[in-house]
Amino acid sequence: MTIRAVVWGENIHEQTNAVVAGIYPEGMHATIAAALNEGEGISATTATLQEPEHGLSEARLRETDVLLWWGHKDHGAVSDEVVERVARRVWEGMGLIVLHSGHFSKIFKRLMGTPCALKWREAGERERLWVINPRHPIAAGLEENFVLENEEMYGEQFSVPEPLETVFISWFQGGEVFRSGMTWRRGAGNIFYFRPGHETYPTYRDANVRKVLINAVKWAYNPAGALTSIHEAPNVPVEAALEPIVERGPKLHQAGEAGYR
Amino acid sequence: MTIRAVVWGENIHEQTNAVVAGIYPEGMHATIAAALNEGEGISATTATLQEPEHGLSEARLRETDVLLWWGHKDHGAVSDEVVERVARRVWEGMGLIVLHSGHFSKIFKRLMGTPCALKWREAGERERLWVINPRHPIAAGLEENFVLENEEMYGEQFSVPEPLETVFISWFQGGEVFRSGMTWRRGAGNIFYFRPGHETYPTYRDANVRKVLINAVKWAYNPAGALTSIHEAPNVPVEAALEPIVERGPKLHQAGEAGYR
Amino acid sequence: MTIRAVVWGENIHEQTNAVVAGIYPEGMHATIAAALNEGEGISATTATLQEPEHGLSEARLRETDVLLWWGHKDHGAVSDEVVERVARRVWEGMGLIVLHSGHFSKIFKRLMGTPCALKWREAGERERLWVINPRHPIAAGLEENFVLENEEMYGEQFSVPEPLETVFISWFQGGEVFRSGMTWRRGAGNIFYFRPGHETYPTYRDANVRKVLINAVKWAYNPAGALTSIHEAPNVPVEAALEPIVERGPKLHQAGEAGYR
Amino acid sequence: MTIRAVVWGENIHEQTNAVVAGIYPEGMHATIAAALNEGEGISATTATLQEPEHGLSEARLRETDVLLWWGHKDHGAVSDEVVERVARRVWEGMGLIVLHSGHFSKIFKRLMGTPCALKWREAGERERLWVINPRHPIAAGLEENFVLENEEMYGEQFSVPEPLETVFISWFQGGEVFRSGMTWRRGAGNIFYFRPGHETYPTYRDANVRKVLINAVKWAYNPAGALTSIHEAPNVPVEAALEPIVERGPKLHQAGEAGYR
Repeated sequence: MTIRAVVWGENIHEQTNAVVAGIYPEGMHATIAAALNEGEGISATTATLQEPEHGLSEARLRETDVLLWWGHKDHGAVSDEVVERVARRVWEGMGLIVLHSGHFSKIFKRLMGTPCALKWREAGERERLWVINPRHPIAAGLEENFVLENEEMYGEQFSVPEPLETVFISWFQGGEVFRSGMTWRRGAGNIFYFRPGHETYPTYRDANVRKVLINAVKWAYNPAGALTSIHEAPNVPVEAALEPIVERGPKLHQAGEAGYR
Repeated sequence: MTIRAVVWGENIHEQTNAVVAGIYPEGMHATIAAALNEGEGISATTATLQEPEHGLSEARLRETDVLLWWGHKDHGAVSDEVVERVARRVWEGMGLIVLHSGHFSKIFKRLMGTPCALKWREAGERERLWVINPRHPIAAGLEENFVLENEEMYGEQFSVPEPLETVFISWFQGGEVFRSGMTWRRGAGNIFYFRPGHETYPTYRDANVRKVLINAVKWAYNPAGALTSIHEAPNVPVEAALEPIVERGPKLHQAGEAGYR
Repeated sequence: MTIRAVVWGENIHEQTNAVVAGIYPEGMHATIAAALNEGEGISATTATLQEPEHGLSEARLRETDVLLWWGHKDHGAVSDEVVERVARRVWEGMGLIVLHSGHFSKIFKRLMGTPCALKWREAGERERLWVINPRHPIAAGLEENFVLENEEMYGEQFSVPEPLETVFISWFQGGEVFRSGMTWRRGAGNIFYFRPGHETYPTYRDANVRKVLINAVKWAYNPAGALTSIHEAPNVPVEAALEPIVERGPKLHQAGEAGYR
Repeated sequence: MTIRAVVWGENIHEQTNAVVAGIYPEGMHATIAAALNEGEGISATTATLQEPEHGLSEARLRETDVLLWWGHKDHGAVSDEVVERVARRVWEGMGLIVLHSGHFSKIFKRLMGTPCALKWREAGERERLWVINPRHPIAAGLEENFVLENEEMYGEQFSVPEPLETVFISWFQGGEVFRSGMTWRRGAGNIFYFRPGHETYPTYRDANVRKVLINAVKWAYNPAGALTSIHEAPNVPVEAALEPIVERGPKLHQAGEAGYR
């Protein structure tokens, strides 16, 4: 079984900033997709902000098992309709991996229900990621910590809901800490946030980072197919009750009427 | 210290449905507020859909410690601006208690990031609520279970995020179960969902239900004041780093520039 | 890769009670192992209380990926040394699936740190298990609920720690509810508790129950190998610090000395 | 209502080590108790390893609302009977606050069900504690971070169960991170682990640390009284079932017989 991953990239700084274009001439999304395609059983393609429907049509999403999201410069340019479409697919069971500055993407804030804010500093300082959950599938094959010599700092408080599990915590040279890898489930969908990946450093060329991305795609993948029933709020009529009951008391709804939404 | 609670009521069925008007002639919101005012240290007032800004102006919310929300017939009539305003206050630390059909309110879905859907049946059947967390503050003073002889059935799957703690699970005569009391934290705000409260039954006149509401308001209250910093994503410049660091490598941002949102 | 499962059975009632012997002439452990061996990629064997070291020698456990535990009549007969040995293997990453009356086994109480008590009634009543987390791997292939026509009742409060995720909640004919499927992680080990399985009913011959057991073994399996470092509390000497630091202030320990335990 | 806190101290290094005796001539337990007694509504006393029953008789524990635990040199000297007695009181609702090297105490390991191991280095390095949950009651009145200029390092992986909530994460000068404040509930009891407190530094004289201890006692306190029923596993006979049921099928137990434990 091949996992169908789509790497969504904003693809702005690669076109407008010489430093970023120098590090990722093919685009960050393409670099990330190439990293995933090194993983056994993963087939990764890309989508970008500039494509029609940002490359995320209903048809495309229906055939996507895991979506990765990198955006930074223009979160507001992503259409609300596409955001809602992605959210629905996550609830149905599509995995979602949110990368770095994607913490402020519409889709992440939509699924977390919180500001998703944090502190930051762009100084090329050293980040050390500690594996605090060493047998979590996302940490497979890693040492107990690994270093990114130059990264942007993100510092707590990171205003997200308490996660299911915390996988990584980062130490920064300038004195901050950050929960750099966390998991949540929303509906049937597995969500993972992974902190590193500032566009002015070659983070997505780092072997440990690439390993995490491959692990995360495998972890987020749900082989059981789309849970489309999650959008429904079905009425169970009295005559269909699992245990025999007799209707009593006053009612708002007539038989067969749908509920209010 | 008095906890300032506001009970928000949709106030439609009380005006349009004879059964509901018969049970709650003063309006469900007024009945609930009266229940809360029996609680020591709580001062409860009301707000309704029909008031300007639905009774939830910036000024009013700033002076609200805990908001209770009951809506059913017309969730769509609540303005998105007010929903966003309430969400911001929850993140700052205002408590939120969502009641019964409020599971489909805009504000609850906004904060959960999931469909919040469920099964339902309006047959006046028996509901038995089990306390599965007997020393949770919200269960103070209750027996190990209590009965509502006539209630609407809500059945699992209830598509909400895994809670911090589950306080109640309901048994229904027709064969379903439901997690009827769950807690979450979003930002600095405590959230509690409480299932019972169908408008065609006198649920909010039940002594146990009233006890739960009082307990929940006390639990949700945060005495520490508004965490307004939660909306910010501050830059920490190199010269203000807690540990001395030297800036290295390329940058996107000029000194003093705000981050992208 | 074949998952090596061991089904541990107390094997007392099968030898002493005619009803149980009639349903499980080969022993419950053998019935459960046969169910697992129907699962692709699982190789299940058995161990019983009566064997030397209860069939759970160091060597055997080292080659066990997932252990299933059924006991009821004589939890006290399990040696503390074997319990500690099993706990250590769970922390290293061995999966553990605790069945029915195993809620009171020494190993489950050891790993939960709570009484693990509950209400019970042996009346052959109907149990309906609701899947409240429909895309959890342990629920793969199930309908939204399934029925066991005759089961022992277990009722809340079930005094266990708040789980990572709740997969099943049971409805009982006599009016109780129970969280019938819950997951925890302890160290590197995945733990699942599954409620049904009273020995006077043919529960382990039920197709849905067998499906859950197979799913649970696959879910609990950790392919990454034993995390033996979890038992250590290593000193990191100053000269091995990841960031250069200078020793300051008074000390208790001499260089190279082990910590207190 | 006054919260009755007991500070348990091992009281060995204060007697045998000149450095520790110099910092805490009255004993660490006495210093901590004095800090708590500065908190409004708290009445703190002490107990030590050397007293009969380690100062924790049944009668004393029955009148204890919150117990604080500091031990390091000789965890093994604490009698298993007292450990079990304390665990039972926690399940009944007594709060427990475990300090620093208490991570390896029998009582903490008993309640966590995991090794509770970690890395360590005694070098007097700088620790910075970040508040990652700024409106948690335990963080009341703190800035977004605070510094202990000289502390022992504790580093991840800290092998404890995933907490209910994480309140503090520490940054260490030598490159490590640590979840320094975490909460759990076990039975009816609230548990908090707080990392700082190495005996060769004056940590318990630090104003922020003292504030955390006072906050933690208030948070852990459960006003609802002892839940003694948590130790029971009651049979609910058929004739006492909440919904009328008819007994069916074979049984193991005779009417009125207790369950197996």
